[in-house]
Amino acid sequence: MTVRGRARTIDMPTKRPAKRPTKLDLAKNWLPRYTGMAVDGFGDYILLTNWLGYVQRFAETFGCDVSGIGRPMQAATNSAGLSIINFGMGSPNAALIMDLLVARRPKGVLHLGKCGGLKKAAEIGRFILPIGAVRGEGTSNDYLPPEVPALPSFKLHKFVSQKLVEHDSTRDYRTGVVFTTNRRVWEHDADFLRRLKSLTVMAIDMETATLFVVGHVNQIARGALLLVSDYPVTPEGVKTEESDASVTRAWADMHLRIGIESMTGISEHGEEMRHFRY
Amino acid sequence: MTVRGRARTIDMPTKRPAKRPTKLDLAKNWLPRYTGMAVDGFGDYILLTNWLGYVQRFAETFGCDVSGIGRPMQAATNSAGLSIINFGMGSPNAALIMDLLVARRPKGVLHLGKCGGLKKAAEIGRFILPIGAVRGEGTSNDYLPPEVPALPSFKLHKFVSQKLVEHDSTRDYRTGVVFTTNRRVWEHDADFLRRLKSLTVMAIDMETATLFVVGHVNQIARGALLLVSDYPVTPEGVKTEESDASVTRAWADMHLRIGIESMTGISEHGEEMRHFRY
Amino acid sequence: MTVRGRARTIDMPTKRPAKRPTKLDLAKNWLPRYTGMAVDGFGDYILLTNWLGYVQRFAETFGCDVSGIGRPMQAATNSAGLSIINFGMGSPNAALIMDLLVARRPKGVLHLGKCGGLKKAAEIGRFILPIGAVRGEGTSNDYLPPEVPALPSFKLHKFVSQKLVEHDSTRDYRTGVVFTTNRRVWEHDADFLRRLKSLTVMAIDMETATLFVVGHVNQIARGALLLVSDYPVTPEGVKTEESDASVTRAWADMHLRIGIESMTGISEHGEEMRHFRY
Repeated sequence: MTVRGRARTIDMPTKRPAKRPTKLDLAKNWLPRYTGMAVDGFGDYILLTNWLGYVQRFAETFGCDVSGIGRPMQAATNSAGLSIINFGMGSPNAALIMDLLVARRPKGVLHLGKCGGLKKAAEIGRFILPIGAVRGEGTSNDYLPPEVPALPSFKLHKFVSQKLVEHDSTRDYRTGVVFTTNRRVWEHDADFLRRLKSLTVMAIDMETATLFVVGHVNQIARGALLLVSDYPVTPEGVKTEESDASVTRAWADMHLRIGIESMTGISEHGEEMRHFRY
Repeated sequence: MTVRGRARTIDMPTKRPAKRPTKLDLAKNWLPRYTGMAVDGFGDYILLTNWLGYVQRFAETFGCDVSGIGRPMQAATNSAGLSIINFGMGSPNAALIMDLLVARRPKGVLHLGKCGGLKKAAEIGRFILPIGAVRGEGTSNDYLPPEVPALPSFKLHKFVSQKLVEHDSTRDYRTGVVFTTNRRVWEHDADFLRRLKSLTVMAIDMETATLFVVGHVNQIARGALLLVSDYPVTPEGVKTEESDASVTRAWADMHLRIGIESMTGISEHGEEMRHFRY
Repeated sequence: MTVRGRARTIDMPTKRPAKRPTKLDLAKNWLPRYTGMAVDGFGDYILLTNWLGYVQRFAETFGCDVSGIGRPMQAATNSAGLSIINFGMGSPNAALIMDLLVARRPKGVLHLGKCGGLKKAAEIGRFILPIGAVRGEGTSNDYLPPEVPALPSFKLHKFVSQKLVEHDSTRDYRTGVVFTTNRRVWEHDADFLRRLKSLTVMAIDMETATLFVVGHVNQIARGALLLVSDYPVTPEGVKTEESDASVTRAWADMHLRIGIESMTGISEHGEEMRHFRY
């Protein structure tokens, strides 16, 4: 008996010829495979992160389980119906999770990411609520033509911004444009830094543009709240083991807390978000 | 005292103005940060994988520790000086690990990946030794112009192919071209499948082209041995939870074993691999 | 009376409308027209060259006839069933011979070409076994989209590399990427040289990429063994009448001999080479 013979189809009729699966078929089967959590285990609102640490802290806070250990993604859901997913790093994983979430059709998704600051206003420890992202990653080109801007859902960001204002201790948050790239090791590259400067971007990360574009294609309300964790414009600001741990100690709790409050309150107090088809 | 004040520079003189770090500076500082393993903890030869399970199986086999749990990448090194790293999924992570390995200057790197078969000859359970990869991922365009082909190191693949021939139980392995993409959910997309067919590629994955190009740029001898884990050309061959577990049970041990044998024997029996600067 | 005048029409019905001939129809009719040799005069394995001198030397060695004198291509076949063809120069001729060989369906084709070295490692007299070629010639775009890499058949090159290793006198051979172009006079052009450098290619020639791509399209196992005959990076290395004669005296015999040995032994000792249709 071959391996192939043992493989079952997904929501397929048993008689031949089998139909090609739809995107929804794939997402329903794959979201549990990647996260170890059933589709209905996820809540209406979802936080995204690149670190297992955020998922663990979330689970400790709410006394809930972490699923997906040993799988590519880990997830947890609290009793209020808010979920958090560590989807890994980089634009392909960002596109993947925004495709898989089609299975759950969440009402809102907020990415809690880190970014490198590129302007004086974006110093370490600042929060950035990106109003758009430069699609330097290529991945989103598989979803929409390159001239379509990568944008968050306005009403979702408006609500997050209210939460930021309520937290005096967050100092001023920044709004601006983020450059999303697939490169991680570029801090030595003067040409690349010159290009970043010419684009007038405030910060650099590896996921935001992709999350926005694929979220738009899949009609998922989405946003991003980024924490400036390094400042690669000056040699002293380049991320190191020590500086990264220091940023995490100082700011990660606040980052996660604002994310949780934003996506918990939005269902009661946020403006209704609509998604229009063409 | 600000977070920034506490961050130390990397291999920097203490007097100002600080020099911009080189790629080597960054790699030496970041390889341990991402993997939890010191630079000299890695051996001369390195296996790459996308699954923690392969690292754990390697560690059990050789009775060595797994470092990096809770970090983005996990690693282990056996007493013969062979290392294995789980670098995660997708082309940005593939580029990152090939940049970070500049810190160690390994003599050879072999990726043990999975791929989707696109031709009848690439059925589930086959091994593919890719002779090249179509750069459909964009990430490698940040490293070399798109007309440069993404290629493995010939002498490394020549040695791996000998090991494959020695293992009767592997059946015939295939050589062919892999399409590397950032999309994961495309099995429903008839246009994408038509494009794959027009390119005459044998299989599809998410890392091989990037590993080859960034390895070339960094003068690291590299190869890939891919296991066909799904056959998305037909609806029955689309990956599911069950089919994936079944492939893992049937073929993963053999996959890892051939990788280990290849990268252990090559230092004694392979042809010398050179990397020429201009 | 012209050669073409003697050629009969090909498998055409006499009543109109006549059927359009297939590629195979054309190849069967034209291969003899171009070479003066009947289709079944060619062996299972074929050497390609750009010089009549190689064909003549082959014929002297084996005591066989040279056909095609006065035609665009010349050919000879020895008693072991190995053939050699001088197909002329340039990518259009390379595409032509790989199309015409569809008539014979050879088991393997090895091109014995010359190239210009672009790196220190590729000095005059070195052999290069190209692992791929940059498709700078345009011709191959008529056959496959430009993102498909131009590659040799792995198992054929694996066998040739064994022959190179056995010949001590060949010194180390090189593996690397060749840039194939339609330009012949570019040695004066600094921009062109800069582009070559940015592509990190080891050598430059006029046929390899085309042979690889058209061979792939026609499902013909193919390879190339290139002899570095000039080193155009330095003014002293630019090819002249005298330097070319000197390279020929020193290296051409060895070049041809390794080609003959490789394509003679491969039928008994090489791994089986398969070509898969969809």
